[in-house]
Amino acid sequence: MWSNSGSAFIGCDASYEEAAAVLFGAPFDGTTSFRPGARFGPHAIRSDAFGIETYSPYQNRDLTELRLHDVGDLELPFGNADAALSAIEVHTRKLLGDGKTPVLLGGEHLVTLGALRAVHAAHPGLHVVQFDAHADLRDDYLGEKLSHACVMRRAWELLGDGAVHQFGIRSGEQAEFAFAAAHTELHPFAFDGLSDTVRALGDTPVYFTLDLDVLDPSAFPGTGTPEPGGVAFRELLQAVLALGPLNIVAFDLTELSPPYDPTGASTAAACKILRELLLLTIRK
Amino acid sequence: MWSNSGSAFIGCDASYEEAAAVLFGAPFDGTTSFRPGARFGPHAIRSDAFGIETYSPYQNRDLTELRLHDVGDLELPFGNADAALSAIEVHTRKLLGDGKTPVLLGGEHLVTLGALRAVHAAHPGLHVVQFDAHADLRDDYLGEKLSHACVMRRAWELLGDGAVHQFGIRSGEQAEFAFAAAHTELHPFAFDGLSDTVRALGDTPVYFTLDLDVLDPSAFPGTGTPEPGGVAFRELLQAVLALGPLNIVAFDLTELSPPYDPTGASTAAACKILRELLLLTIRK
Amino acid sequence: MWSNSGSAFIGCDASYEEAAAVLFGAPFDGTTSFRPGARFGPHAIRSDAFGIETYSPYQNRDLTELRLHDVGDLELPFGNADAALSAIEVHTRKLLGDGKTPVLLGGEHLVTLGALRAVHAAHPGLHVVQFDAHADLRDDYLGEKLSHACVMRRAWELLGDGAVHQFGIRSGEQAEFAFAAAHTELHPFAFDGLSDTVRALGDTPVYFTLDLDVLDPSAFPGTGTPEPGGVAFRELLQAVLALGPLNIVAFDLTELSPPYDPTGASTAAACKILRELLLLTIRK
Amino acid sequence: MWSNSGSAFIGCDASYEEAAAVLFGAPFDGTTSFRPGARFGPHAIRSDAFGIETYSPYQNRDLTELRLHDVGDLELPFGNADAALSAIEVHTRKLLGDGKTPVLLGGEHLVTLGALRAVHAAHPGLHVVQFDAHADLRDDYLGEKLSHACVMRRAWELLGDGAVHQFGIRSGEQAEFAFAAAHTELHPFAFDGLSDTVRALGDTPVYFTLDLDVLDPSAFPGTGTPEPGGVAFRELLQAVLALGPLNIVAFDLTELSPPYDPTGASTAAACKILRELLLLTIRK
Amino acid sequence: MWSNSGSAFIGCDASYEEAAAVLFGAPFDGTTSFRPGARFGPHAIRSDAFGIETYSPYQNRDLTELRLHDVGDLELPFGNADAALSAIEVHTRKLLGDGKTPVLLGGEHLVTLGALRAVHAAHPGLHVVQFDAHADLRDDYLGEKLSHACVMRRAWELLGDGAVHQFGIRSGEQAEFAFAAAHTELHPFAFDGLSDTVRALGDTPVYFTLDLDVLDPSAFPGTGTPEPGGVAFRELLQAVLALGPLNIVAFDLTELSPPYDPTGASTAAACKILRELLLLTIRK
Amino acid sequence: MWSNSGSAFIGCDASYEEAAAVLFGAPFDGTTSFRPGARFGPHAIRSDAFGIETYSPYQNRDLTELRLHDVGDLELPFGNADAALSAIEVHTRKLLGDGKTPVLLGGEHLVTLGALRAVHAAHPGLHVVQFDAHADLRDDYLGEKLSHACVMRRAWELLGDGAVHQFGIRSGEQAEFAFAAAHTELHPFAFDGLSDTVRALGDTPVYFTLDLDVLDPSAFPGTGTPEPGGVAFRELLQAVLALGPLNIVAFDLTELSPPYDPTGASTAAACKILRELLLLTIRK
Repeated sequence: MWSNSGSAFIGCDASYEEAAAVLFGAPFDGTTSFRPGARFGPHAIRSDAFGIETYSPYQNRDLTELRLHDVGDLELPFGNADAALSAIEVHTRKLLGDGKTPVLLGGEHLVTLGALRAVHAAHPGLHVVQFDAHADLRDDYLGEKLSHACVMRRAWELLGDGAVHQFGIRSGEQAEFAFAAAHTELHPFAFDGLSDTVRALGDTPVYFTLDLDVLDPSAFPGTGTPEPGGVAFRELLQAVLALGPLNIVAFDLTELSPPYDPTGASTAAACKILRELLLLTIRK
Repeated sequence: MWSNSGSAFIGCDASYEEAAAVLFGAPFDGTTSFRPGARFGPHAIRSDAFGIETYSPYQNRDLTELRLHDVGDLELPFGNADAALSAIEVHTRKLLGDGKTPVLLGGEHLVTLGALRAVHAAHPGLHVVQFDAHADLRDDYLGEKLSHACVMRRAWELLGDGAVHQFGIRSGEQAEFAFAAAHTELHPFAFDGLSDTVRALGDTPVYFTLDLDVLDPSAFPGTGTPEPGGVAFRELLQAVLALGPLNIVAFDLTELSPPYDPTGASTAAACKILRELLLLTIRK
Repeated sequence: MWSNSGSAFIGCDASYEEAAAVLFGAPFDGTTSFRPGARFGPHAIRSDAFGIETYSPYQNRDLTELRLHDVGDLELPFGNADAALSAIEVHTRKLLGDGKTPVLLGGEHLVTLGALRAVHAAHPGLHVVQFDAHADLRDDYLGEKLSHACVMRRAWELLGDGAVHQFGIRSGEQAEFAFAAAHTELHPFAFDGLSDTVRALGDTPVYFTLDLDVLDPSAFPGTGTPEPGGVAFRELLQAVLALGPLNIVAFDLTELSPPYDPTGASTAAACKILRELLLLTIRK
Repeated sequence: MWSNSGSAFIGCDASYEEAAAVLFGAPFDGTTSFRPGARFGPHAIRSDAFGIETYSPYQNRDLTELRLHDVGDLELPFGNADAALSAIEVHTRKLLGDGKTPVLLGGEHLVTLGALRAVHAAHPGLHVVQFDAHADLRDDYLGEKLSHACVMRRAWELLGDGAVHQFGIRSGEQAEFAFAAAHTELHPFAFDGLSDTVRALGDTPVYFTLDLDVLDPSAFPGTGTPEPGGVAFRELLQAVLALGPLNIVAFDLTELSPPYDPTGASTAAACKILRELLLLTIRK
Repeated sequence: MWSNSGSAFIGCDASYEEAAAVLFGAPFDGTTSFRPGARFGPHAIRSDAFGIETYSPYQNRDLTELRLHDVGDLELPFGNADAALSAIEVHTRKLLGDGKTPVLLGGEHLVTLGALRAVHAAHPGLHVVQFDAHADLRDDYLGEKLSHACVMRRAWELLGDGAVHQFGIRSGEQAEFAFAAAHTELHPFAFDGLSDTVRALGDTPVYFTLDLDVLDPSAFPGTGTPEPGGVAFRELLQAVLALGPLNIVAFDLTELSPPYDPTGASTAAACKILRELLLLTIRK
Repeated sequence: MWSNSGSAFIGCDASYEEAAAVLFGAPFDGTTSFRPGARFGPHAIRSDAFGIETYSPYQNRDLTELRLHDVGDLELPFGNADAALSAIEVHTRKLLGDGKTPVLLGGEHLVTLGALRAVHAAHPGLHVVQFDAHADLRDDYLGEKLSHACVMRRAWELLGDGAVHQFGIRSGEQAEFAFAAAHTELHPFAFDGLSDTVRALGDTPVYFTLDLDVLDPSAFPGTGTPEPGGVAFRELLQAVLALGPLNIVAFDLTELSPPYDPTGASTAAACKILRELLLLTIRK
């Protein structure tokens, strides 16, 4: 009779104790350089999830078959990227210690770094698979090392050469592409080579980070830095489903900035991809 | 460390058992004749309440001093006004039976009728004080008796002549104003006569219904039927504070339709008035 | 010299008497479960039709060659789905009796049921071809049998097994897909199998119902329940043009909700598809 | 049963022949210097009039008591101010010749000039009463004599010193205020002196032109050049009602630009003021 | 330390004297027939260019390698198309005389005519390559010869049969398509035949005019006349890159109308295509 | 002939050297706790200033009489409040050293602290006059000392008891009002006591900080934390004009967040108040 619609993602009906995976929001957008608002991403995903079903005809599975818990949002300090990342790291470590798969909802892409540190500590030999419009490989941005534009550079510092697999990249400084040529596996523009990567990774533990701006702005205008020329929703969906064989030990969705899309289509895209990712990864 | 911001109104930290007042949403807008969307009112109030404080410098009181519980939204059928009103009535009756002050968040103004039936059953001799742009005194609207445009006519049928006190009314059919002249206490345009009404009502049990479109569209454009010429926010606030001596046994706020105000100013107005009403009435 | 632009769809210059087809609006959205506003669909289509031409380079035909009349909108009660459907049915019956092809502009998808009842009565052996994101095959929705989420289930009750041809379906409960497997011809995700269906139907009388949310939200965000992963506009256009051989005796367009697309792109898509459908079907 | 809501202003049920007053739209905004869109003003007024009543509790009169006709919009050339004004003038002349009170819906304020020429020809000794934020007294604007910023200068050239009464003016070049001091009756900021003007004008024929941006942007943001510091809606309403004794032989409303106010509040303000003006003036 | 972000397009760091190409805006939309606002196009392109990089991974080139100057916007009269075109022509002539490649940012598509006159005078034998949704081949529009709907007809009058190459055209009157069949090279709907055209043109001087509404409204809703069925961004990008071998002596981008796309995606598309066009053409 | 409209505030035609006052933007919103976007404030003020005049009929003065320079925006690091404040302080110091009156355009309210430090160093005995909805007197906010919610507490630490004069305050924690009672001159809700304060301050050097959210959201919805119950634009204008006798040695405007007001009314309000403040203060 009572509905608390909006307080948790659909299908997240398990208690923390019984859950196999735990969703949590990191409503931080403090280093966004163009259009802030990703802080409202987790809230919008929970609110508009009501508009989609728990059942996926793509996978013929239903969220109600999983044991999911949505713990809410972290309270993060405003204007202090360092402290925000520490809080995310501490919490992710706790989840891993409790045997839960962490599912992080950003926030700007920098939040990935906090979770990645914790996951890397728990899973030596970790690789990262990134879907993104931007390379995010700058060493610093206006002098700041902790910036959404540098997050994959920081990831590389953690994981080393060859452990960062980038897909869909269509924007960056010339130097970032040069850096990628030397140190990461960068697949520009779309998902060419994805099946090879999946095959090669085998059972390697993988952190999957999805910067939703890999989608074309036609499908996902509600983001901080819309970059035309991205993939259509169905291409992203196919690419996500192709990740099935991977050993994904944690994942995130970032860069939904709802105030910039009054139609709600961007939030709907985030919700549906989140559903598919949960159905795909939370079974092991 | 965790925030469930958005899942309850600010300051609603008590359990149901210990609460003196219980907030609940009735996200129904099925009879809205112009612009639907009031179903999203309760959700928006909870989401944006984060933007205001729990403390009121007007009353020098703080919501944290009260014992408030927010039970969430009723699940109401779509397109069936009769069933929706019954559910609201049943639930309000339960709250009253448990000794709680019901605080109803609409939804369109018709939802008032469900709560009013329950409160009237518990409080014989009940009066209604209504702040509204519209008289809502039609006998039917396109043949329907259960319509937002008829809600005060239905209230009058319950309570009788002289028990409906209407303030701020600036719109209606000629016949509604004629009906009001014969059967209700209608104060057009603003709050003239409010202090006399408050004094005359003394300890009479009162249901206060606030259709937020009593506010001018400049202050509250996010509503189903914006009617220019209304009161400013400060006028409404003063009028609300003037209700202090009344014996308000239940109240509601209705007709916030957030999709029609992308600025969020309408939701902020609803949040602040709700805070003041809680601080004013939940002490007895 | 005078323009009544907005009072009728472009090219609708015939009188009722001389018209071969009659457009009418059913501005009803009373059972919409997520975002209401489809009531404004017919009005928006008439207003923005000014932005497109009467000539189609796809078919090399012009609306001015047809005899079309636009009779305006039905006045439908708010919050009473049963009465609304009856009014639509009665009117559609009148059009058919006068020898006109009915062209229904929704409103939410439930309005289809009213027209379908009338068309089925006039055309025994009727089949339905549906383009839609959602299966709409629930038996009830929160207890209501008359709901947009149930409209194809009601259609099946009228027409029987094998007479409901569904294309583009990408959302529903697991039970709906199971029901479809047993009772309807469901083609998921896109238009695979459409040419076979067209060929098989031959001269069978067909009611074509287009829930515009079959389009991807990138092309059509202005709708009640945006469902990512749909078809692009050009795919829909090709599929519509492929319907040419069918014996379409009536058709509708539903689920345009203009308030949710401030860009007007959704309305433009509806206008253009309506033009193509008129040029395709109103010649027999 | 059929509604053509949106094709005429509410209460405009008379035929052209029987009408005492005739509304017509001039959807022209070709000289707008800041934000165009006033071309959509007449259409929006007709569409949203559904949201208000035909009855005025302020005047205790109803539009249904009047004989009003709404003839639709003039088809005006784009990008040719001269031709547009001529068309407006020709049509207004026709209305006057047929004994109708012309009621012009803009469009930008320049459209007033077309109507004014015709009314002045029919009513020697005509005065103009203008409510406006801007003086509109420039001799030219970037070299153009026919500009919204010059319309009252052109009016003065027709009518002469002392025949232009300006109220609410709060913006202009220094030279415009100097010109006003010499040639017009300019009342800055609000309506001080209005009752004196009304008294002094007695039976003089008056053209009343209402640039709706005299309203503060809080009440009327949907306009080409929002100018803070204007009057509240209730102040404008009182000022309009104070015009009752005047001999208004024609009037207009201009500068509603609906695309700039997604809330619809600006259109609602225009609709309500139009209703009051019709009730006030169409009785003689 | 100081940023004048927004006052010039990214990478435009050269002085006028040293520049090989000069960008200038023509903020004119006086003949727009549906939704005005293209006047704000150049300003939006400069403001939001901050969101993209100067480096193109598609061409592996960087704007900082070029010598570009952005001279700002022309001050054009409002409501006088003739005078506006003259000003554009005069200025373009000046640029050509100074040895600069003119890069014109509209504004509505009519502005092309001003630049084209100047470029044609400097380059006898000039051809035009047009990407557009609309044929723009009317002889007049509501009596006006200078209209966005006539601009390619005027171009044809200048350049003659066979010198106007139209791609992507999907809208027009029947007569325009007939005219095209006789006088222009019209490639409907998409870019079929583009490589043949590029090859055939060889070293012929070419003016490239890009009406951005060739893009589908899903990718570019912020325009005056959205026409569904257009190309995706990546298709446009490929087509633009295919122009590489052409001898482009001037080019323009037109019909971005930012007020109609609150997401900013349309402006981002314009910025990115402009970057690619500069990188592609400004090397010779 | 060329317009660089948008690259500087209107009337800012002086060179840096000859200027008496210098405007500069601090596009920082890194500690905004509710709705970010104030970073776009300075840009919007420059862009939309075109819509207002340089002449004030309130003061009968014109910006063209002053010597004003607009130096653009500071490039500030994202997500590092400390570094941003230092940059603002350094630059303000430079302006003061060059004998210019600093005019700071925020940005969130925290930016005031950077300028204040520099102005205080140059003007011992400095007082601050603040117009604001919020007290901004917290000692920390979620552990951060450098927060928009703490800026006046930091100011008090610099200036001491009795040197902070707060007007219009209508929101804060209970503890902030208690702190104010002990340490600042807080005038709640409106401008009561302003003339006394002006008189008492005499020739004392004053830093005037205007958080534009002192305006009611009806007049200024485009802000980070809309707080209903504020002053109308005309009240703010009168209060600003009442500051004339003060010795204002620097001032700022903060908290315009343009993305939250699609109507542009908030930006127009900021532009007009800035014009009046410049005309009022830059003469000494």
